Amino acid sequence: MEIIKGGVCAAKGFLAGGIHCGIRKNKTKKDLALIYSEKKAAAAAVYTTNKVKGAPLSVTKSNIANGYAQAVICNSGNANTCNADGIEVAEKMCDLIANELKIEKTDVVVASTGVIGQPLDITPIKNGIGSLVASLGKDNSKDAAEGIMTTDTRLKEIAVSFDINGVECKIGGIAKGSGMIHPNMATMLVFITTDCNITPAMLSKALSSDIKNTFNMVSVDGDTSTNDMVSVLANGMAGNDLIDSEGEAFSQFMKALNTVTVYLCRCIAGDGEGATKLLECEVSGAKDENNAKIIAKSVICSSLVKAAMFGSDANWGRILCAIGYSGAEVDVNKVDVSFKSSKGEIPVCKNGAGIEFSEEIAKEILLEKEIGIVVKLGDGDGKSVAWGCDLTYEYVKINGDYRT
Amino acid sequence: MEIIKGGVCAAKGFLAGGIHCGIRKNKTKKDLALIYSEKKAAAAAVYTTNKVKGAPLSVTKSNIANGYAQAVICNSGNANTCNADGIEVAEKMCDLIANELKIEKTDVVVASTGVIGQPLDITPIKNGIGSLVASLGKDNSKDAAEGIMTTDTRLKEIAVSFDINGVECKIGGIAKGSGMIHPNMATMLVFITTDCNITPAMLSKALSSDIKNTFNMVSVDGDTSTNDMVSVLANGMAGNDLIDSEGEAFSQFMKALNTVTVYLCRCIAGDGEGATKLLECEVSGAKDENNAKIIAKSVICSSLVKAAMFGSDANWGRILCAIGYSGAEVDVNKVDVSFKSSKGEIPVCKNGAGIEFSEEIAKEILLEKEIGIVVKLGDGDGKSVAWGCDLTYEYVKINGDYRT
Repeated sequence: MEIIKGGVCAAKGFLAGGIHCGIRKNKTKKDLALIYSEKKAAAAAVYTTNKVKGAPLSVTKSNIANGYAQAVICNSGNANTCNADGIEVAEKMCDLIANELKIEKTDVVVASTGVIGQPLDITPIKNGIGSLVASLGKDNSKDAAEGIMTTDTRLKEIAVSFDINGVECKIGGIAKGSGMIHPNMATMLVFITTDCNITPAMLSKALSSDIKNTFNMVSVDGDTSTNDMVSVLANGMAGNDLIDSEGEAFSQFMKALNTVTVYLCRCIAGDGEGATKLLECEVSGAKDENNAKIIAKSVICSSLVKAAMFGSDANWGRILCAIGYSGAEVDVNKVDVSFKSSKGEIPVCKNGAGIEFSEEIAKEILLEKEIGIVVKLGDGDGKSVAWGCDLTYEYVKINGDYRT
Repeated sequence: MEIIKGGVCAAKGFLAGGIHCGIRKNKTKKDLALIYSEKKAAAAAVYTTNKVKGAPLSVTKSNIANGYAQAVICNSGNANTCNADGIEVAEKMCDLIANELKIEKTDVVVASTGVIGQPLDITPIKNGIGSLVASLGKDNSKDAAEGIMTTDTRLKEIAVSFDINGVECKIGGIAKGSGMIHPNMATMLVFITTDCNITPAMLSKALSSDIKNTFNMVSVDGDTSTNDMVSVLANGMAGNDLIDSEGEAFSQFMKALNTVTVYLCRCIAGDGEGATKLLECEVSGAKDENNAKIIAKSVICSSLVKAAMFGSDANWGRILCAIGYSGAEVDVNKVDVSFKSSKGEIPVCKNGAGIEFSEEIAKEILLEKEIGIVVKLGDGDGKSVAWGCDLTYEYVKINGDYRT
């Protein structure tokens, strides 16, 4: 497996583009993105578990119920959620792009991201649809990635090439996500493309299995969005033998998919609203995987842990506290905690009690941009990793008046 | 019922005091508090559900297992939690105060609050125990209240007088709590005293029932502390007929207790770390009380709602979002939301979709110090209230480097 350039355009037969159509006032910010596959592709998606769901999610779900799609359209600046005409507008977006691309309107994955509860005017999208299709190109993954950004400060894109029985396949993805991030059974907006030849059923299986250990283990602020979605399109143009069951080829695909998703998870957590640090909590020795997950996520979600990390303060008591209220089965007298970064690793708690450590070395470790919180439970084989970020003044600033 | 002065000393036979003994470096901050009843009192307490529990909680639990106590000792500046010698130190605190007061050491409620995981040196407590007892007085509830404060900016104290079958009873309480506040089946530190004559069993029943709608509905930051406790001492000196079963007298007592606890809840939420506003979420029309509670608490806990309230931004979409991910049974198409304060009330969402409203009036309402978020679900009779506060720069500052 090798990291390559090209994002969602890396795989054969995929083009992408992005434009500013006028949903946002800021004309320098792209607000409409398109991904197109020359061939109809197997499609799978997972959605937010929030009971308040964005209208585009319902439309997408219905469109890809047959397991296929050919294009993804997504706007930023408006979530098209909690609007009386939401479904109608989302369907109209599909109609417009299908007409322009000359594909079936039920082969469109549609998504929106931005403010909740403000009607989405279709006019700028209608007026821009020609330019959007004209913007499609093999080198334009970054334009699409930019078109879906909201409070994101960094573009999130990756691609890898991998090998299935001697046939080179590629898989790539783009993501947006910075606030209202606490995915549960689904996630922020992530669009993945691959030229791997795989059935819709196996594609769906791969995605559902992968997100449990990737996007569902990310939290920026504990708020599960109404519009989260991860979708994958697989157009089969790599020419490998069709993957229609589990086995070596499926494992290879899962591994490549996981490389893409873990990378994007780290991007999203590290670019959390206002974040200055990426936090990675590694839990091992838990009773089982489920308990490990509960603990890793509880630590990563604690406002007090997040604020301590912002201050580079080795306040491990807050980690014990978050483990204690997590609801997981745990023997608190066996918990070991250490902090690590590129500057080294320092144990701070052994068997549930503090140990002497150098505050200076701890500070040096915690001043880095990527911090590992290592929790060992001595209780079994369960392990898990969760990703989050620190809580900063900037988060409060961004969210104190997001709409203006 | 009437609000009166005196805090935990309002009830007959209770004295209180507080001193600086040297646990904290800042000599102007009291760090040791004492409450004493001239007569042995019925005692009840509820404790944190965090699996990591402060050592003092275990000692208190064992001490009041027989239903009686006569004194409360509490230090601030150190939580005596996650320390190898925690139990020993907490028991030593009981020994010292019992000797000085000439009471049984098992009649002491002991508590600690402050940093987790730093050994608590008994020396300053030992040296100060004489001064602590000498500080006891009928007018000194405020000294005790000050002795238990950590990041609190405001002293939290109340007392009420009430009538049981023509006999005047009094009940009063003090509280501390500002961060790491998300009580679950128990709460932050609250000490309540009453001269009402009530059995330990009924006192315990009253407390357990009350906290479900009071302290368990408060959240400052979603972090359930390791040292939360509410305790009540009832010494019977008011002389009312012993309350040993449910009935009119018990209801009168419950009402007085609830007045004290709701007041202290609002104090704690409004003085949340860094808070500029008290948030009160009133949910009605839920399927049942449990669903109402889940929703009220989800709204109050949302970082995004909290940050929006800091910015006085009527971003109701985030309230819908928090309702949607709460896990409660709810028909999102029937949700109405309005904001209110002393400046008035403004509806912003009707049947799950936005309605036109004046941003100027909404701003004016949201600029107040006490904000009501009113959620109507049109789904049944369930209702609930939860209390929280806004998320501010100051919260991040306080918690970015709490230990230094």
